Amino acid sequence: MSAQRNGGGDGARNGNSYEAPKPRAEWLSKRRDQAVRSGDQNFSQMHYARLGAITEEMEYVAGKERLTPELVRDEVAAGRMIIPANINHPELEPMAIGVASCCKINANIGNSAVTSNVDEELKKLHTAVHFGADTVMDLSTGGDIPEIREAILRHSPVPIGTVPIYEAISRVKRIEDLTPEIYLEVVEEQASQGVDYMTVHAGVLIQYLPMVSKRITGIVSRGGAILAQWMAHHHKQNFLYEHFDDISKIMTKYDVSYSLGDGLRPGCIADASDEAQFAELATLGELTKYAWERDVQVMIEGPGHVPMDKIREQVDKEVELCYGAPFYTLGPLVTDIAPGYDHITSAIGAAMIGWHGASMLCYVTPKEHLGLPNDKDVKDGIIAYKIAAHAADVARHRPGARDRDDAISYARYTFDWNKQFELSLDPETARSMHDETLPDDYYKEAGFCSMCGPKFCSMNYSSKVDEFNKRVHGLEKKDLTPLMEENLVKLGRTAS
Amino acid sequence: MSAQRNGGGDGARNGNSYEAPKPRAEWLSKRRDQAVRSGDQNFSQMHYARLGAITEEMEYVAGKERLTPELVRDEVAAGRMIIPANINHPELEPMAIGVASCCKINANIGNSAVTSNVDEELKKLHTAVHFGADTVMDLSTGGDIPEIREAILRHSPVPIGTVPIYEAISRVKRIEDLTPEIYLEVVEEQASQGVDYMTVHAGVLIQYLPMVSKRITGIVSRGGAILAQWMAHHHKQNFLYEHFDDISKIMTKYDVSYSLGDGLRPGCIADASDEAQFAELATLGELTKYAWERDVQVMIEGPGHVPMDKIREQVDKEVELCYGAPFYTLGPLVTDIAPGYDHITSAIGAAMIGWHGASMLCYVTPKEHLGLPNDKDVKDGIIAYKIAAHAADVARHRPGARDRDDAISYARYTFDWNKQFELSLDPETARSMHDETLPDDYYKEAGFCSMCGPKFCSMNYSSKVDEFNKRVHGLEKKDLTPLMEENLVKLGRTAS
Repeated sequence: MSAQRNGGGDGARNGNSYEAPKPRAEWLSKRRDQAVRSGDQNFSQMHYARLGAITEEMEYVAGKERLTPELVRDEVAAGRMIIPANINHPELEPMAIGVASCCKINANIGNSAVTSNVDEELKKLHTAVHFGADTVMDLSTGGDIPEIREAILRHSPVPIGTVPIYEAISRVKRIEDLTPEIYLEVVEEQASQGVDYMTVHAGVLIQYLPMVSKRITGIVSRGGAILAQWMAHHHKQNFLYEHFDDISKIMTKYDVSYSLGDGLRPGCIADASDEAQFAELATLGELTKYAWERDVQVMIEGPGHVPMDKIREQVDKEVELCYGAPFYTLGPLVTDIAPGYDHITSAIGAAMIGWHGASMLCYVTPKEHLGLPNDKDVKDGIIAYKIAAHAADVARHRPGARDRDDAISYARYTFDWNKQFELSLDPETARSMHDETLPDDYYKEAGFCSMCGPKFCSMNYSSKVDEFNKRVHGLEKKDLTPLMEENLVKLGRTAS
Repeated sequence: MSAQRNGGGDGARNGNSYEAPKPRAEWLSKRRDQAVRSGDQNFSQMHYARLGAITEEMEYVAGKERLTPELVRDEVAAGRMIIPANINHPELEPMAIGVASCCKINANIGNSAVTSNVDEELKKLHTAVHFGADTVMDLSTGGDIPEIREAILRHSPVPIGTVPIYEAISRVKRIEDLTPEIYLEVVEEQASQGVDYMTVHAGVLIQYLPMVSKRITGIVSRGGAILAQWMAHHHKQNFLYEHFDDISKIMTKYDVSYSLGDGLRPGCIADASDEAQFAELATLGELTKYAWERDVQVMIEGPGHVPMDKIREQVDKEVELCYGAPFYTLGPLVTDIAPGYDHITSAIGAAMIGWHGASMLCYVTPKEHLGLPNDKDVKDGIIAYKIAAHAADVARHRPGARDRDDAISYARYTFDWNKQFELSLDPETARSMHDETLPDDYYKEAGFCSMCGPKFCSMNYSSKVDEFNKRVHGLEKKDLTPLMEENLVKLGRTAS
């Protein structure tokens, strides 16, 4: 079922000839039959949780997260955890986003009007899932948007998110021609295809627009800027806010989760934590309550660009204003001066905000601010965010989070190079860097590397201190071989 | 004078044919004459500061840091700031390391017995200085160590640090053959060549060795491991601790600053903040006091590998136990699982520890744990650390730290692509990434990029919201053109 994750299968790469497994097919058909009998057409996980039921998705998630199914159910019922799982996405392996579970990462893919196509996007999906993206957003804005999305959904074992206003815009000539009807039509179509969560910028209200005039970079969210322009043209309130009930109805029907968009997120560190940002956040809290009354699952999107000293405040405000709904942040970047390296500037902020309690981190690639990411950029972004999310899990002391660190450290100390590579986030890269100076097999068991050479290897000397401690003080070092083996098994890897 | 910094000169690359400028030559000859007259042979900046004098170095540093010369003098006198400036390094452009000044970064270069030579190391020096290393450590352990160091010193406008025990080891057959005499001979030779600061692992005491038996990775500092093995063999106390007075005498004679080494730093996150680490840190505090009594400048080396939740404690302990001597940390890495990407795992920890008050961050390259870094690795390490140090300056609200962020953000908002590139840490990379999809000159003024295309550019829409705010609410956006220009001038760059 998880072949694509472990790199064995290459379903996404094979395009339509490959049929992805459908682990949820049976559960869903059973659930539909039940709905016909009961007449209850609300399929949301939150709805079931609040009725006290433990769905197969909750059970599956509990197993993966080492939590009890009851805890998962209770967190979903309380709104602190979501399981984005559209009933029309049987290919999905369920996962959870919430502070009680491990920190997740999202990878944005999708083409733009300027570049890319279906095959390239499927390749990016494969890369993203292979290197560990927990969800993927298809942000396509050009070409045949529904076709690209269909291909992605039918090949994706991870939840797929979208921003429906992008497709809505593609159906009109000018932004001001956009109507609630067109938008709702797009949402319904995407939901029936199987999209698991949707970004809806319903919190950008017309009264907040003057607040952005003090900013350096104004409005940087594409959805936020589209709606702002629409409101400025019509002098009318945001139609997503006005029609939130209509949208919510579609959400319950397919169990699409809301990802309430931060249309007024800061686009540079000078604009962070300003009046506009927090005014919108308060509205997102109001909408969260409204959605929860209808048992719709919700997460809240967050920034963006935030200096380190203001990161903790972002989480505290979100928890306070949005009642603990899972926080899903984009980075944040902690400085604006490094275009070309924004996977790094933002991994710093992402790790910190994950530590403070954000539930999912949306990656940023090196290409941010400069162009559409290619396959290599997707990989670089994912690895940086796997690092950030894992560091957050370790700092929050999530159960077992440090095991892999301890296992790889032991492999390092015992000069088991092959195990060190296989326990790493990217074995191929680690191995090739070692090969650069010491390619022979012999060196994969050597008690040194080219950094220090044999005469200067501290770990090599250190083993003599271990002998001293044993002989003189009777102190023995702990053998962590079983931990190494256990972690290799968990990763489905062998170190030959 | 600063040609090498701005990339115009390529002195380091040209080897010995190029003669570097000597900005300090006159100051130093005057100072030597004075010493002959007074008989006072202590040349340390701390010594002058405590006598109430403001040296040319202090004056120079004050100008660069936008501080008053009096403040610089007082900080140096108090030991909270050091100006590593050997009197035999006239090529140096003075700089300061301390919590009152901007956060600095160090790049390690140097060969190993397995690989690299003089030319390659000079190339790395050039790369390091060009991309903004504030100091460089020559950690050579193979080949003709004094020759490599001489070449580096004579071409370096930044302070050069070394770890003398590496060269001492190269002069004996076995570690146990090492004697205090050999070590002092090496220190004297290196000091007379012009080395500005030296790592001395005088805090690894024999009674601390049993404490490492609980660790996963034992002792990972090369110097620490060498001394531990020496002590284990002889059952004697660390001779650097025993001979600290002799070493300090050489330090005052040439004004070499101590970088008190953390021989027991943790080598994995499981080992962070343990008994061994903090026992050594307390000894480093004791040695700091001793050095300060002799007016020797001191900074304290720190870890290493530390999970995010323990980073702040590292700074607090150092300030408490070492009386506020500048803290100079290696990363720290916040997880162990990403060999090949440790510039990122460590930039996260470095940014955080810099924010909490570390004064200098020693870079880690992608090659860490795998091999000796090459020129590309040096560049990648430097950029990651420029990001970390700058983010720290911004988070600490150091005066003017955010100016460059604001300038580049304004360039971004106004679609001035060339200015955005030139205001970035690595203009060449930023430009080439933009060129990848939109190479034509036309696009360097276009109101969009390939990420979103013309129809989906938020910044483009946002300008229409600005018009709305002006028309309807009478609110005007601030023009930051002068800030952009000012920052370009400061960087010595033009955006054509």
